[in-house]
Amino acid sequence: MTVRRFNAFGWENVPVLSYKEGGPYKDVTRQILFEGEASLPAQWRYFEVAPGGHSTLERHEHIHYVMILRGRGACLVGDGITDIAEHDLVEIHAMQWHQFRAAEDAPLGFLCLVAADRDRPQLPDADDLAALRQDAKVAAFIRA
Amino acid sequence: MTVRRFNAFGWENVPVLSYKEGGPYKDVTRQILFEGEASLPAQWRYFEVAPGGHSTLERHEHIHYVMILRGRGACLVGDGITDIAEHDLVEIHAMQWHQFRAAEDAPLGFLCLVAADRDRPQLPDADDLAALRQDAKVAAFIRA
Repeated sequence: MTVRRFNAFGWENVPVLSYKEGGPYKDVTRQILFEGEASLPAQWRYFEVAPGGHSTLERHEHIHYVMILRGRGACLVGDGITDIAEHDLVEIHAMQWHQFRAAEDAPLGFLCLVAADRDRPQLPDADDLAALRQDAKVAAFIRA
Repeated sequence: MTVRRFNAFGWENVPVLSYKEGGPYKDVTRQILFEGEASLPAQWRYFEVAPGGHSTLERHEHIHYVMILRGRGACLVGDGITDIAEHDLVEIHAMQWHQFRAAEDAPLGFLCLVAADRDRPQLPDADDLAALRQDAKVAAFIRA
């Protein structure tokens, strides 16, 4: 048995990493709860976006399965924007543009489950951004 | 995007199932949060053990990766028994006997991540139980 005790949205022997994606982001940390192995080929992570911060706007072939664990905020997935709060589940399908934003006055912490073997995220190019910005609500939401 | 709103440890469009294992258990429900698919070959479940209840004592080749989401209790994994509380992480290795028990005065709800493709749980036979009961602490803990 391995037990990692929880303390203030950190876990024993789980380092807090920088978010370290290629694209623009603001105030996001990453903790790898489970790296994945042959008998469970999935990686389980905890991301935390500080108040006012946001994840990178990106898309990829692999799906994300997300549960909000702390705080609240909103997310863009495809062309949908929705408020999210503790324990809500969000499924992000293949090649959907997505971005998470914390509220201005609360963090947004979430569990994110992905396949251990997965493609690299794609960032939007100028054409992608122009297409996304044709929707006024999306244009107002995204940070890129 | 699929969003499943959280409400009182249930989720929209996620049925509450009986625990439905072969062995003896008491007061456990099961919700399948994500069934698993080719691009994410893992199943993500939420189990909830009512106060005083327990999961089945079992073992299997596939590993479990668990996060406590609600309440508190204790678990046996291998020959170790430990108290567990909200957001603690528990990794159960291959072929370790394991059983979860809720506190008498609190439920124990936990997320459990497994491979989509996995072996069936094994229940202890009389010899296994005799071996487990050689440890007094384990003998006092298990319900079988």
